[in-house]
Amino acid sequence: MADSELPTRPKTEATNEAAPAEGGDSKNASKNALKKAAKEKAKAEKAAARAAQEKAQAAAAEANDTAKGLYGQRPDSEEIVSTTRFSELSEESYEKEVTVVARVDNARVQSAKLAFLMLRQQGQKIQAVIAAAEPISRQMIKYTGGLNVNSIVQVTGIVKKPEIPISSATISHLELHIRKVYMISEAAQMLPMQVKDAERPPPTEAEEGQVDAEGTPLVTLKTRLDNRVLDLQTETSQAITWISSGVAQLFSEYMIKSGSRWIFTPKLVGAATEGGSNVFEVKYFKRNAYLAQSPQLYKQMCIAGDMESVFEIAPVFRAEESNTHRHLTEFAGLDFEKTFQNHYHEVLDFAEDLLVFILTQLKERYAPQIAIIQKSYPKAGDFKLPKDGKALRLNYMDGVALLKEAGVDMSEQERFENDFSTAMEKQLGQIIREKYDTDFYVLDKFPMAVRPFYTKADPTDSRFSNSYDFFMRGEEIMSGAQRINDIKELEASMRAKGLDPTQEGFEDYLNAFRQGCPPHAGGGLGMNRIVMFFLGLPNVRLASLFPRDPQRLRP
Amino acid sequence: MADSELPTRPKTEATNEAAPAEGGDSKNASKNALKKAAKEKAKAEKAAARAAQEKAQAAAAEANDTAKGLYGQRPDSEEIVSTTRFSELSEESYEKEVTVVARVDNARVQSAKLAFLMLRQQGQKIQAVIAAAEPISRQMIKYTGGLNVNSIVQVTGIVKKPEIPISSATISHLELHIRKVYMISEAAQMLPMQVKDAERPPPTEAEEGQVDAEGTPLVTLKTRLDNRVLDLQTETSQAITWISSGVAQLFSEYMIKSGSRWIFTPKLVGAATEGGSNVFEVKYFKRNAYLAQSPQLYKQMCIAGDMESVFEIAPVFRAEESNTHRHLTEFAGLDFEKTFQNHYHEVLDFAEDLLVFILTQLKERYAPQIAIIQKSYPKAGDFKLPKDGKALRLNYMDGVALLKEAGVDMSEQERFENDFSTAMEKQLGQIIREKYDTDFYVLDKFPMAVRPFYTKADPTDSRFSNSYDFFMRGEEIMSGAQRINDIKELEASMRAKGLDPTQEGFEDYLNAFRQGCPPHAGGGLGMNRIVMFFLGLPNVRLASLFPRDPQRLRP
Repeated sequence: MADSELPTRPKTEATNEAAPAEGGDSKNASKNALKKAAKEKAKAEKAAARAAQEKAQAAAAEANDTAKGLYGQRPDSEEIVSTTRFSELSEESYEKEVTVVARVDNARVQSAKLAFLMLRQQGQKIQAVIAAAEPISRQMIKYTGGLNVNSIVQVTGIVKKPEIPISSATISHLELHIRKVYMISEAAQMLPMQVKDAERPPPTEAEEGQVDAEGTPLVTLKTRLDNRVLDLQTETSQAITWISSGVAQLFSEYMIKSGSRWIFTPKLVGAATEGGSNVFEVKYFKRNAYLAQSPQLYKQMCIAGDMESVFEIAPVFRAEESNTHRHLTEFAGLDFEKTFQNHYHEVLDFAEDLLVFILTQLKERYAPQIAIIQKSYPKAGDFKLPKDGKALRLNYMDGVALLKEAGVDMSEQERFENDFSTAMEKQLGQIIREKYDTDFYVLDKFPMAVRPFYTKADPTDSRFSNSYDFFMRGEEIMSGAQRINDIKELEASMRAKGLDPTQEGFEDYLNAFRQGCPPHAGGGLGMNRIVMFFLGLPNVRLASLFPRDPQRLRP
Repeated sequence: MADSELPTRPKTEATNEAAPAEGGDSKNASKNALKKAAKEKAKAEKAAARAAQEKAQAAAAEANDTAKGLYGQRPDSEEIVSTTRFSELSEESYEKEVTVVARVDNARVQSAKLAFLMLRQQGQKIQAVIAAAEPISRQMIKYTGGLNVNSIVQVTGIVKKPEIPISSATISHLELHIRKVYMISEAAQMLPMQVKDAERPPPTEAEEGQVDAEGTPLVTLKTRLDNRVLDLQTETSQAITWISSGVAQLFSEYMIKSGSRWIFTPKLVGAATEGGSNVFEVKYFKRNAYLAQSPQLYKQMCIAGDMESVFEIAPVFRAEESNTHRHLTEFAGLDFEKTFQNHYHEVLDFAEDLLVFILTQLKERYAPQIAIIQKSYPKAGDFKLPKDGKALRLNYMDGVALLKEAGVDMSEQERFENDFSTAMEKQLGQIIREKYDTDFYVLDKFPMAVRPFYTKADPTDSRFSNSYDFFMRGEEIMSGAQRINDIKELEASMRAKGLDPTQEGFEDYLNAFRQGCPPHAGGGLGMNRIVMFFLGLPNVRLASLFPRDPQRLRP
């Protein structure tokens, strides 16, 4: 944009209000103030004269302008404009006139007779060109080439085959020869960040502050998230948000098809029953409330309420001071809970099939989006699913054994009291990928010591539990279990975990079991994590529209 | 249950731990303490003797019991039990053996040789009978007839045609002749409320404290909500929760089919931008956050982020001290936002079709549930939809005129500054039902004075706005509008409403418009209100799983 022919924006606001108001209360005005007023008056007169001159010039130019009415503000008319989407354009559109609404990704005046626009629609780009030839005037070319980047314009033009493919456009085999260009929504001249600078992955910590080959500073993830609306406009963000949408859609589709009921449980709860310190406190009229950390207790109460199979899609709140690449303080939870007849593996089978369905269908239905994301995040396309369509299920102790084979030994105490560390989980993910050729797998039978109080112990070995975690690329995306449905067992389990069943807040939950509750199991998925690990994104914030962490409450 | 043959539950816990521990630190024990210990020892010995006697009797009875193994705790076995659901039973099941899992709705011993169970599955009831005949023993009959109400049992029996239909059962044309009965989950002997007492509508305020024809006190809505898990077990609650599930499902179905993207916007926000006093404050680490009152600003930011059409299904929080039949402090919001090409009526048409789709499909897909609800709430089945499948759309001023015809006149000031009162809305609903034969309609062009700052004024008459409300039975279920997408217009509108655009919290929202934003419109639906008004329920709390209001934070 260092072009010397770059037009300046015409001044649209008159300056004739610059003269000070002459009020009746200026009796005590000093000599200085009078001088100042006189100066300002002179200045205002000069400005007015200049404005008048510019106006006259503009009028003269307009009088001569053969393209009058073909550009500028969109005319207010009753006429219905029919627009074409970029995705509808093809070689069959050659030589046809179309009207598109798109953002100005870039505008460039080549000469007084030629200008280029790069037009962008949900990240897709097409080049448009405007050349002087009746009725297109120099004024119209100047206007077009001088459009503020990111403005939304309505462009009418003829689709042409470019002599050579436009390599800087995503749709490179066609070009738009402009006939009309109207402003729909003008962007400010200065943007806090260029959308095109957000089109590559954010720099790693080591790369921060560096510049790229063209000398442009690398835009940090922080800057991108601070300006998330601009960041969402990139082709990659558009594709990622489609994948997020897809995960929610596929989850609900599968649950509904299975005969499950969609529930909405309260996020405002009266007591911090699920681990006190990680819960957000809310001022609720004259008392305190808390934000639910999960719908766990409520979905179980729905099961006790004879609903048999329920699911929920709702925000989950965690007041954890965790500043990592995979923790958020608010995320989208996909929860389900189901009764079973004979064995909790009925529910585990169901949940495995659910995940296989989601991941398989993501690959099938969102192949174009995955291909786009792959350009920035190469792992996006390589997520390995089990070949036979059935999830790989191992026991926790099988995982321990696989790690031992690889030289990572856990002590007896570690095995039963600690669970895997994040590093171990990742290593196990690698081992399983190599051995079983899958990035998705399930570990069953976790130690009882590492699971919450409502988890059912393994009846054959009480050191273990009827609980499972689901993993993608070696990172956990779901935790679930058979739940205790017997009141005495539940109260004993609470006491064993150091919880007091008579504590305020547990009453309603425990009553649900006193009144009879069928055997059931379930799980809770983190939507953002599924998106992150499926696509191999470096940070969960890229898989959240407006991420929340201990440091971030905006935008 | 005043039957004298009612068995008492066998004592399962031994009392041999009642004797005090004799520790080595009792040197200073007083005479009194010794006396007390001696007394307690004698008592314990007596109890132990009684327990031993009971045990002996039980063993003797068991030795004679021809039904041993056919009742009691479900045997732990590897055998897979295949169960039948009540809904699968029909006349074709006559004389076949089935196994069902159900709650004991009622248990009654008729004689030493005959007992009855009413079994309940998701509110549906079937009678089961047990009669003494090899191998069924008197002990088994006593056990069956003495089961605690609400316990979950597994019953195997032969399906028979009863001599006369069982009028107290919902499935009256078949009966189960019991062969086996096992306990799955035992309910306590005393329940805070009987499920059958929650099977009719809650009493009105005037009826509170009254008794029914049989002398049973009417269970208040408060008691029912306090014991919501039991209340959910009624046939009516089961049906209502299916309708709620259906509304969410149909909304998402329609939105997805239209090409809209499912979004998840933050509920934790940094500033109380949408009307300060009605917002819940949250302790967010070392600062304050607030709970979003709607996804309004965020869904607009998604539109500015080029997402074109978005929808969200998420909780909405309102810190309003409104204790009415239709206000909740937390409810399920169904939100959407869409760009349009030429006129906001493109979006309004879309939204009208959305509601017609939801309401029509509810009637089609949930006819059995509606029929059940109708037994308690007669209006449930009479919701009138427009005959031609197109929503009735009137202007606000048409509504004013209809009310005037009916004798309700609004002053000029009222018309432009007040909007309708709730009473006026209801009356207008009546008038429209009579005149247009529909319970669903739309009012367009509300006065600008009664709409929020982001609402677009009507370009032809600035007293009005491009905004609309949707009504069901004369009560509002949706509010929506074209939104201002020009930054200058937006800032001016904020100032006109007494808001300061430079206030903290607005920055990110306003920047979205500074960077260019396409014209768009949208709306927000209250899921619980749709359910309430569609079914003609007297209180929105009946259309919420675990309702929240200023007084209620539990269960």
